[in-house]
Amino acid sequence: MADTYVLVHGAWHTGAELEPVARELRAAGHTVWCPTLAGNRPGDDRARTGLADSVASLVEFVEGQQLTQVRLVGHSYGGMVISGAAARLLPRLARLVYVNAFVPLPGECLNDMVPPHYKALFDAVAAGNGNAVMLPFEIWREAFINDADLELAQTAYAKLNQHPYRTFTEPIELEQPVAALAVGKSYLNCVLDIAMPASMPWHPRLSERLGLFRYIECAGSHEAWFTQPVALARAIIEAGRD
Amino acid sequence: MADTYVLVHGAWHTGAELEPVARELRAAGHTVWCPTLAGNRPGDDRARTGLADSVASLVEFVEGQQLTQVRLVGHSYGGMVISGAAARLLPRLARLVYVNAFVPLPGECLNDMVPPHYKALFDAVAAGNGNAVMLPFEIWREAFINDADLELAQTAYAKLNQHPYRTFTEPIELEQPVAALAVGKSYLNCVLDIAMPASMPWHPRLSERLGLFRYIECAGSHEAWFTQPVALARAIIEAGRD
Amino acid sequence: MADTYVLVHGAWHTGAELEPVARELRAAGHTVWCPTLAGNRPGDDRARTGLADSVASLVEFVEGQQLTQVRLVGHSYGGMVISGAAARLLPRLARLVYVNAFVPLPGECLNDMVPPHYKALFDAVAAGNGNAVMLPFEIWREAFINDADLELAQTAYAKLNQHPYRTFTEPIELEQPVAALAVGKSYLNCVLDIAMPASMPWHPRLSERLGLFRYIECAGSHEAWFTQPVALARAIIEAGRD
Repeated sequence: MADTYVLVHGAWHTGAELEPVARELRAAGHTVWCPTLAGNRPGDDRARTGLADSVASLVEFVEGQQLTQVRLVGHSYGGMVISGAAARLLPRLARLVYVNAFVPLPGECLNDMVPPHYKALFDAVAAGNGNAVMLPFEIWREAFINDADLELAQTAYAKLNQHPYRTFTEPIELEQPVAALAVGKSYLNCVLDIAMPASMPWHPRLSERLGLFRYIECAGSHEAWFTQPVALARAIIEAGRD
Repeated sequence: MADTYVLVHGAWHTGAELEPVARELRAAGHTVWCPTLAGNRPGDDRARTGLADSVASLVEFVEGQQLTQVRLVGHSYGGMVISGAAARLLPRLARLVYVNAFVPLPGECLNDMVPPHYKALFDAVAAGNGNAVMLPFEIWREAFINDADLELAQTAYAKLNQHPYRTFTEPIELEQPVAALAVGKSYLNCVLDIAMPASMPWHPRLSERLGLFRYIECAGSHEAWFTQPVALARAIIEAGRD
Repeated sequence: MADTYVLVHGAWHTGAELEPVARELRAAGHTVWCPTLAGNRPGDDRARTGLADSVASLVEFVEGQQLTQVRLVGHSYGGMVISGAAARLLPRLARLVYVNAFVPLPGECLNDMVPPHYKALFDAVAAGNGNAVMLPFEIWREAFINDADLELAQTAYAKLNQHPYRTFTEPIELEQPVAALAVGKSYLNCVLDIAMPASMPWHPRLSERLGLFRYIECAGSHEAWFTQPVALARAIIEAGRD
């Protein structure tokens, strides 16, 4: 079955970093799009782009391409964006897939779901950096891409871009919880992911906000897109199929 | 080493659905029986069959076949049944193996161990269905057989039978906790199983009721009997051996 | 990259039992040492050897061999010993790796981190055994080496030695928490390990005491050194590399 996937990247990433996984999905016969969200494109205004802008850019992309029966896959921060876009895109959606992704309740911002030490770090970085944030390499290497060797950790880090902090602090506009949307939902959890501490985990803390959902696991860390593209693509298919 | 296994099915199943796993165990040299419990046979009275009837049918089977050194394996609801039968079969048992199965304390019924939303659902279904229950396909597909493709989810669902609800509501008769029985115990956990929510998990919530127990994991969902028969058979051997 | 590993055994073990894993690491190009700690050598005084003696023997070994850029790997009780040695060996260390190991806070002893039923058991055994402890075979077989067949469980058990109980009851001397040491830290968790109960797990209860740490998983039980030497060696490399 040829399905249509739209892969929505996380903070600091663009669609280009998802291409290795997209290639695997295409090799399995699927159509795959990896748009880059507003705020993460070259030249985007990192000081002012907010969550609503990013959501709008995803809606615009899916509508502009006239995609239907879309399996909308959000990674990490991308979970905020697919959540914000889901109601507007509902007639075009076949399923929502969260990959170690944030699942906001109405009115929450991303920072409401992260531990205090991340928020404190981001606040400090943004204050001295034109309201854009970057992840320190040491945290990236140990807690985000813990399953990579040092060389891959470094080359992957070099691809990241400054992220507009307003997308972390701006509350999401949702008329109802994602769980209430009449579309299938899956949560894909990479089992080595420690980007969130165990006391505030991705799963089940955020996955169970989806109501009835399909649970799928995958090898790898938060950055399995770099370290485990084949396994991640297979898991996305298990999560995304009917 | 040729061991004797009795595989005890869960709710809505019969022994026939365990045959793919039984075949793998036999190929490894073991003797395997897959009886169908009272209440799940064609023509059984779904309105009146209770847990004690189901337990009695298992005791009768093992005694009737004059089996000894039995590794008694219960899946899901089958954990209620092997728990109820264990004391009476003790001289014939080599080990108890729970596969994502209920482990009741004396006087508990299955419904005491499930989340309120399942109990509410089952109550409603049973009320309009002659005290028999069936699982809605949507829940089956997403939360029970989440690792299957749609076709397998459908063909497996077509094999299920109406389950006598009294076996969920009738308290078990146990003179002492299962942990006190002088026989080895194992708990086998399929890691994708989300039939129970993460806040009321199979393991460790129910496994630790076994006291000293051997822990084994397997790939797959609650219905790994359909989706992962080879891996499940191997894991049952790891759980069931001396 | 040829790295230097020092593998530090757990209670009841000597360095010899780590050799199958060491061989795999050497085959990957690394230099590996498996010293036996004071208290676990033939002829050591099991009644009087304490934690400080064991720590001193590790420091002495690393300094005596003039090792540098050491990846210091502690298993189980070995986590106490590498924690106690780390500050003194700091200029010689490249990374600390805890393998299902204890991570003490300043002033804690090992017994402060185990469930009450273990402490009660050890107290009773030590009282009648010259202050040395041994693990009952039944617990070893079900909860420590749950993934072995019976023969391996027995041959591995036969290699264990009486362990000096003072190393479990003597508080560790630490000037500051391990988290504060300026060296990378990793926690490697064997996913079948139930030597600690799920209510007092190795990870995240003890791993998060490391502050920023790299998380790696491995197949196998607490005794993966015997049951999964190839997988464990690979995981140690993932945990130990820069």
